[in-house]
Amino acid sequence: MVTVTEKVRFYETDMMGIAHHSNHIRWFECGRCEYLRQAGIDLFELMDEGILFPIKSVSCEYVSPINYADTIVIETRLTRLSRAQMTYSYRIVRKEDGVLLAVGTSQNVFTHKDTGTVARLDDRHYNKLKAWYEREEASAQ
Amino acid sequence: MVTVTEKVRFYETDMMGIAHHSNHIRWFECGRCEYLRQAGIDLFELMDEGILFPIKSVSCEYVSPINYADTIVIETRLTRLSRAQMTYSYRIVRKEDGVLLAVGTSQNVFTHKDTGTVARLDDRHYNKLKAWYEREEASAQ
Amino acid sequence: MVTVTEKVRFYETDMMGIAHHSNHIRWFECGRCEYLRQAGIDLFELMDEGILFPIKSVSCEYVSPINYADTIVIETRLTRLSRAQMTYSYRIVRKEDGVLLAVGTSQNVFTHKDTGTVARLDDRHYNKLKAWYEREEASAQ
Amino acid sequence: MVTVTEKVRFYETDMMGIAHHSNHIRWFECGRCEYLRQAGIDLFELMDEGILFPIKSVSCEYVSPINYADTIVIETRLTRLSRAQMTYSYRIVRKEDGVLLAVGTSQNVFTHKDTGTVARLDDRHYNKLKAWYEREEASAQ
Repeated sequence: MVTVTEKVRFYETDMMGIAHHSNHIRWFECGRCEYLRQAGIDLFELMDEGILFPIKSVSCEYVSPINYADTIVIETRLTRLSRAQMTYSYRIVRKEDGVLLAVGTSQNVFTHKDTGTVARLDDRHYNKLKAWYEREEASAQ
Repeated sequence: MVTVTEKVRFYETDMMGIAHHSNHIRWFECGRCEYLRQAGIDLFELMDEGILFPIKSVSCEYVSPINYADTIVIETRLTRLSRAQMTYSYRIVRKEDGVLLAVGTSQNVFTHKDTGTVARLDDRHYNKLKAWYEREEASAQ
Repeated sequence: MVTVTEKVRFYETDMMGIAHHSNHIRWFECGRCEYLRQAGIDLFELMDEGILFPIKSVSCEYVSPINYADTIVIETRLTRLSRAQMTYSYRIVRKEDGVLLAVGTSQNVFTHKDTGTVARLDDRHYNKLKAWYEREEASAQ
Repeated sequence: MVTVTEKVRFYETDMMGIAHHSNHIRWFECGRCEYLRQAGIDLFELMDEGILFPIKSVSCEYVSPINYADTIVIETRLTRLSRAQMTYSYRIVRKEDGVLLAVGTSQNVFTHKDTGTVARLDDRHYNKLKAWYEREEASAQ
């Protein structure tokens, strides 16, 4: 699991007075990007090699409203991995009191930048992620 | 079903060269807001009455990338309705050729602005939505 | 002058109940992109030729608040042009009653994608923009 | 001066491969909100008292492109203050090497939520800001 801490920005609110629900999808991305970084995957390098990583699906359940200036912790876990896809799950909790704010999932697929067809990660990238995935598996038991 | 047509804005793209996946959640909102408007629900009026309509869950499957300057059509259907909740489903298609770009769902819950507890729509609002829901039901058969 | 009409989206509001002020900068971009399109400049083509067009400066004066569901008209004028730079000015007015909502300016510089150094538009692109610029000049007199 | 450190998020990039220029306006806001917080101004409290603080003008010069995953430091200074308005200036620098990335300014006006007319801060709020403003003045000499 990788955690990222963010403070809710004013512009992330909407006229209902709470953080707009599209931000959760963006916070999930913050968590996922940090996960990849810690696993040693450099997104610039991946793109230079002609590999993109578009989102295939995303879901979010909004458990409790998130307010301006809240400090939130995004917990990210890699829950499925193949050479062509990776699936993450997320929990967002309020830092102050640990209250659960949202849960969600996302699935990326690796594709060739030029053709848009599915790509398969080579050993160098894949083994880095696999090590993290196995650690997740072990800690889940 | 209600349709909304949008043109993809430059700022909606990301460094992978396609529309960022959080925009789909926002386009769903555009569809939902237009649905409510056509059904005669005024969101300002609802808020003035102390009723909010936060999102409870959202999901999206990304079928095909969406590019800058694409003209997209968001099709919105009301698929479940109670006095306390409404569920919508969405399809985003490219206007030019009708290609399916994304599908998704969302669920709103009505809440009291002051307490955050679940609210139930009164007859005036509910009957407007119910008429549209029944029309959806009829056309789905 | 080129005009673009947009409807203010729910997610563009913030907790003060009005459209967040960063959206004006984005609406200016909508106006500028449509200006370039009408002038015959294809941004994908430009990028394929290795030319980028980053923003060098931007300014906005907020005359009157913009609300959710307002229909706004963005008026865009090309006010200065060289092979290396273009400057636009903007007016945003409410469609319903013509009330002025905001004015602003922006300046783009053309750069080489690879080196980041200043690029100069070739005749093909430059002459298209110059024709529009001269038309603006003529109508301003 | 108040400093805020942020890491550039993936979704903040656009298809030119750099952070979209509207984000700078949002980062300025992050700096301004933190400035107000450190000065002891609670924005929720202000709004509860019926005072809003819309933006009256904003400007930004983009000195150098900002990239995904860059760590940036936003420096915020209060440069003018009255009971009805406050003006801030900003510098964004790259944390790693101190390179200047952008400079800008913004002006807020205080308004009555109900009428939209100009409001004047009472002593309690004004004196907090004035103390910070005087400190800025002193350090600028």
